[in-house]
Amino acid sequence: MTKRILLNAFDMGCAGHQSPGLWAHPDDQSLRYNDVNYWVELAQLLEKGKFDGLFLADVVGVYDVYQGSQDTAIREGVQIPVNDPLLLVPAMAQATEHLSFGLTYTLTYEQPYTLARRFSTLDHLTKGRVAWNIVCSYLDSAARNYGLDRQIGHDNRYELAEEFLEVSYKLWEGSWEDDAVKHDKTSRVFADPEKVHAINHDGAFYKVQGIHLCDPSPQGTPVLYQAGASPRGRKFAARHAECVFVAGPTPQIVRKTVDDIRLKADENGRGADSVKVFTVFTPIVGRTEEEAKQKYEEQKSYISYDGALALLGGWTGIDFSQFSPDQTLEYIENDAMRSSVEVFTTADPNRRWTVEELAKHVGLGGRGPLVVGSPEQVADELERWVREADVDGFNIAYTLAPGTFEDFVELVVPILQDRGLVQHEYEQGTYREKLFGHGKVKLPDTHTGTQYRKGKTLQHI
Amino acid sequence: MTKRILLNAFDMGCAGHQSPGLWAHPDDQSLRYNDVNYWVELAQLLEKGKFDGLFLADVVGVYDVYQGSQDTAIREGVQIPVNDPLLLVPAMAQATEHLSFGLTYTLTYEQPYTLARRFSTLDHLTKGRVAWNIVCSYLDSAARNYGLDRQIGHDNRYELAEEFLEVSYKLWEGSWEDDAVKHDKTSRVFADPEKVHAINHDGAFYKVQGIHLCDPSPQGTPVLYQAGASPRGRKFAARHAECVFVAGPTPQIVRKTVDDIRLKADENGRGADSVKVFTVFTPIVGRTEEEAKQKYEEQKSYISYDGALALLGGWTGIDFSQFSPDQTLEYIENDAMRSSVEVFTTADPNRRWTVEELAKHVGLGGRGPLVVGSPEQVADELERWVREADVDGFNIAYTLAPGTFEDFVELVVPILQDRGLVQHEYEQGTYREKLFGHGKVKLPDTHTGTQYRKGKTLQHI
Repeated sequence: MTKRILLNAFDMGCAGHQSPGLWAHPDDQSLRYNDVNYWVELAQLLEKGKFDGLFLADVVGVYDVYQGSQDTAIREGVQIPVNDPLLLVPAMAQATEHLSFGLTYTLTYEQPYTLARRFSTLDHLTKGRVAWNIVCSYLDSAARNYGLDRQIGHDNRYELAEEFLEVSYKLWEGSWEDDAVKHDKTSRVFADPEKVHAINHDGAFYKVQGIHLCDPSPQGTPVLYQAGASPRGRKFAARHAECVFVAGPTPQIVRKTVDDIRLKADENGRGADSVKVFTVFTPIVGRTEEEAKQKYEEQKSYISYDGALALLGGWTGIDFSQFSPDQTLEYIENDAMRSSVEVFTTADPNRRWTVEELAKHVGLGGRGPLVVGSPEQVADELERWVREADVDGFNIAYTLAPGTFEDFVELVVPILQDRGLVQHEYEQGTYREKLFGHGKVKLPDTHTGTQYRKGKTLQHI
Repeated sequence: MTKRILLNAFDMGCAGHQSPGLWAHPDDQSLRYNDVNYWVELAQLLEKGKFDGLFLADVVGVYDVYQGSQDTAIREGVQIPVNDPLLLVPAMAQATEHLSFGLTYTLTYEQPYTLARRFSTLDHLTKGRVAWNIVCSYLDSAARNYGLDRQIGHDNRYELAEEFLEVSYKLWEGSWEDDAVKHDKTSRVFADPEKVHAINHDGAFYKVQGIHLCDPSPQGTPVLYQAGASPRGRKFAARHAECVFVAGPTPQIVRKTVDDIRLKADENGRGADSVKVFTVFTPIVGRTEEEAKQKYEEQKSYISYDGALALLGGWTGIDFSQFSPDQTLEYIENDAMRSSVEVFTTADPNRRWTVEELAKHVGLGGRGPLVVGSPEQVADELERWVREADVDGFNIAYTLAPGTFEDFVELVVPILQDRGLVQHEYEQGTYREKLFGHGKVKLPDTHTGTQYRKGKTLQHI
């Protein structure tokens, strides 16, 4: 049987998300980012199109590497301003029944006690349709808003993240037993205190004594996403993530990461298929190839060159203003933080990318492939990516919002449905069940988070 | 002209809020606290009844003073579990047009950079209908969830709160000028970088370098509530609060606090009427006095004696389990933290309250008056309170949810409307305009928060 393709829409609480400049396109509505009805309409569109989820990115800083200034990001509206992603969800949840929500949230500057409550509240309000994309903040400009001169060192960020997750699991899995809540109006017992446990966490970064503030939400631990592509990030993902979000311009490049993630998850005793891998994919689709190409040419003229390089500057730490637009990329030094550039320089050994070409590419949807074509051609490409990159699904990025999603829902989804590749109807149940199968409501026993459940041996796996 | 009475519903992201045990009443629906539709239905009911706002309380700990244990709070469901109040708002905002939202949130364990973004996001999503009830957390059990052995000292909490507010004002009032955002599709200018300012805050508690993550929301600074009744709390309120929430069993007791708040606000150059004062008020209303009394007798039988003392233990720091139910209160020592008891002992010099009487009183709606009567009698009492306590409005507490509010909307609001005491229709505009008048969208110039606006002299008032 063919593997079902999982579909997320990829967005953020801002205008133009990964298409800098496109907010100025007459058909783009992403300037409505402050309007709750904009988000509700988007969620309803996605549910109509049987999307599995809406994945929201986030940053808590400004892209200020390009030209050593935040001015470009502000002038071009490059992911700033940006609203809190969690607060966009409740109205969308109320207006939908099945659509799930993947929410990027940096743990670096949060208290686990409070963030765990926020996710449990959302898991309740969505009836189990929420996922957390765990992020260790990567911007110096973010760190400087939290009393630090620069971001915490890369590996230390992951040590802190490991303990943050440990506290969160204790709250989500270990504090309230599943049958603690009675809500018994006859005996007038709200909950059984014997089944509610203080977590008494005393670690290197956090001390958290009490019980979780929320009773067990449908999923307990929300579905966990992770997006770190570094070796340390992949180790973290293999241990914690149920879904991984990767990005790359070709299936071959993404495949290397996917294989490594599956191998590491298997080594962790979780099984190679325990992790669903999503990759970013930007479609410009027309009723014909010709129409799609016209759209592409027209949209391309709205790309902000400076905005794209501001975005790339934030992602890579490289100030591209030092290079002329026709500079080729292989002359730019790479290190781990500069992987966004590296993947382009190595994508095709026969192609020499210039800075301008990179900006133009990133300017329509970011680091993934941009596929311009007829509905069939786009569907073919999605199929090819699943086959060649071994991914489970896609974060569909937009060039125009909600136009990209409207086109995809109207033109591409029916073809994928006809091919048996995406769902005709939603499965019942929580997000985790929809991803992994009926009855799989909570973390599986093989997941490290379950060691903190009552009755499990409390030792590190 | 008679002063309009402002009406808030008083609730919390939990069951039974201030009526411990009443969740077990067959008519109570507050066990639906995890259901987003429950909140949407409540908001729609309140808007139908022309309530100004829904005021949500919060705690981030458990009431564990009574019997030195959290077990009573858990067994009786005394404000635990409790969902994040901010996340309850967006769906309610989407389902209403005019109802405002007063949201209690402890600043003690938050980062101002992130909390400011959350409130700005909410102010955007609600189109300017949000207020923050500023709280310095008062529970040791909360502190122990954030790496501390006990809560920060009382006055230090307010020093930290002062700086937290300073940072917040800088972000809300000083970072993005009102005309910074252009959203100009023709010139392709999203925002003018010259009008967006890094706040460069470097203080004793917080260092925050960057620009605010959100563009200017309708109100900028949300409407500010404060509820501290201590001398230091009142000083803080007189400086920052636009609305103050007080509680007491008689108008005379509340009047002392109200007079002091108005005097201090006036001394701060803000004017005695710059602060709207709300007091808690719990109605049990029937079509007749007789019907109301029957309801009272019936509801009283659901009060949890232990639950009420668990609540009182948290509020006062006194473990009432050391006293027998017939112990009279004047033998209980008082200090500033024990004001909840003090107001009852001094409420009527001729009355001797026992512990049991106190528990029974607090068990139906908390520290305010419980008024049992016909619609006219309840309306009369509200009028008397406004006259005698000089309050501007009420936080209407429930004994049954949403029954108390249904009765109030159906039976009491029409009488108050006939008397010209509450609004027949909503005013247009933001919450601040609805409170203070058309055009008063942002903080008034006399408010300390405005000193951080561009062009104002940046010095402390």
